[in-house]
Amino acid sequence: MRTVLRGRSQEVAIAAGSTFVIIGEKINPTGNKKLAAALKSGQLDSAVDLAVRQVAWGADVLDINVGVPGLDEVQTIDRIVRMVAEAVDVPLCIDSGDPRVLEAGLAAAPGKPLVNSVNAEEKQLEAILPIVNNRGAAVIGLTLDEGGIPKTAEERVAAAEKILNRSIQEGIAEEDVIIDPLVLTIGSDSNAARITLETVGLLRERLGLNINLGASNVSFGLPDRPSLNQAFLAMAIQSGATCSITDPVKLGATIRASDALLGRDLFATRFIKHYRTTENLRQKEAGATTS
Amino acid sequence: MRTVLRGRSQEVAIAAGSTFVIIGEKINPTGNKKLAAALKSGQLDSAVDLAVRQVAWGADVLDINVGVPGLDEVQTIDRIVRMVAEAVDVPLCIDSGDPRVLEAGLAAAPGKPLVNSVNAEEKQLEAILPIVNNRGAAVIGLTLDEGGIPKTAEERVAAAEKILNRSIQEGIAEEDVIIDPLVLTIGSDSNAARITLETVGLLRERLGLNINLGASNVSFGLPDRPSLNQAFLAMAIQSGATCSITDPVKLGATIRASDALLGRDLFATRFIKHYRTTENLRQKEAGATTS
Repeated sequence: MRTVLRGRSQEVAIAAGSTFVIIGEKINPTGNKKLAAALKSGQLDSAVDLAVRQVAWGADVLDINVGVPGLDEVQTIDRIVRMVAEAVDVPLCIDSGDPRVLEAGLAAAPGKPLVNSVNAEEKQLEAILPIVNNRGAAVIGLTLDEGGIPKTAEERVAAAEKILNRSIQEGIAEEDVIIDPLVLTIGSDSNAARITLETVGLLRERLGLNINLGASNVSFGLPDRPSLNQAFLAMAIQSGATCSITDPVKLGATIRASDALLGRDLFATRFIKHYRTTENLRQKEAGATTS
Repeated sequence: MRTVLRGRSQEVAIAAGSTFVIIGEKINPTGNKKLAAALKSGQLDSAVDLAVRQVAWGADVLDINVGVPGLDEVQTIDRIVRMVAEAVDVPLCIDSGDPRVLEAGLAAAPGKPLVNSVNAEEKQLEAILPIVNNRGAAVIGLTLDEGGIPKTAEERVAAAEKILNRSIQEGIAEEDVIIDPLVLTIGSDSNAARITLETVGLLRERLGLNINLGASNVSFGLPDRPSLNQAFLAMAIQSGATCSITDPVKLGATIRASDALLGRDLFATRFIKHYRTTENLRQKEAGATTS
């Protein structure tokens, strides 16, 4: 299955066996007080800077979330999506649980954007899928329903099947549904990662859809999060995940390394190029900070 | 299958589903000029320091190699094994291609040591297996034969089967044979890692033996080797590898993270303990360097 996204001028295909697609997560005020304050004051330049920086570090797609309490999110997403789409060529992913915000973001986005996200709850499916279909967008479906995140891999696959079936009924193409099997921290449930990896394998086998995974929830509340996030991402890519909403600065090297290890990068040329580019960026950014 | 090794007082079991076993690789003069010079001059203290340091950083077993051109390796391995066995409790792994060096090292080692290594060449099997059996040791079998390292996973499994059958004929217990499916750098063959990971999966499925993998050959000649080595090790552990001859200082965190992610570390307590211990060591070692 091949999910094609389009930005202003760039096209990105997400597919099993292809190089892994990085969806930059940094335009998100959750846990980023500086960005939240900037959005509230209407200063959107820092969001544009984050867009440019993430693309430089290897993001193939950019996630845009403007969820700040008290903010006019409909107006903000419209403005920010236009500004980002002017600054970078890559496809955009509109990230909100509010249908009006999604609609505004999708209307402002060029090409064929992605929606983050719908889940298997009836209310959500009814509210979000028509918006995705009307815009001709692709959508990320989270495997959770009215009962929360199912405990077993089988139940998560069932939630994915529900999202897929409802999407097709709505008119969305099968290949435009990307499933995110969700992962919780292993700090509170030692089997959390194992079950998610098992779900990835089952989804790959049975549905053949593209699979998204965030790589940082898995280590929430634990020390040395990079070691956990990197190892988890490598395992997830090996299991069949095809894209991740993640931080290209922190996890880009692991992703390009995983592609190279799985035979998707002839003579590791892409890995080497990523290393050279980011070494330059690292030096430039360090210089900018100290000067 | 459960391979039990014993040191002076410590017992280590290598088994699928258990926590991954780290065999510290640092007592090896290959590529370590300082250690090579020390061994040549008969100064073995630095080897003992490396033993103590690796155990502190989480090594469960220690590999000992004294291969320096011109050195009396038989005499050196005897001395060094005795000194290391006095300094640390963990099982030892005697690393040589020379049967006389193996014999001397095994005779000096306490408990039940490991031999690194035999391969599927007739000459090797005949020379090494009787030594392993006489000492009641365990052995690592490399999947290479007279034709070199086979290109396909199936051929490597066949080489493993040959080693296993010959070992059993010789009187060695099945569970005391650990297979190393070998990995070459992806810098010269983009499928090198993929085929090794596939071999790990087949070995696990068909033979159920313990599987050892070095994690650093995979990145030879490439930049940013840590990203490649870490991702490869995480994938190998997920595929079924159960031990690695590796650097606990560089790769211990990835290994403890992989165990935690695969549900082998309740509440990540072992991972957290490893983090705390190594953070202390890092600070101490940095202090020792600057003072």
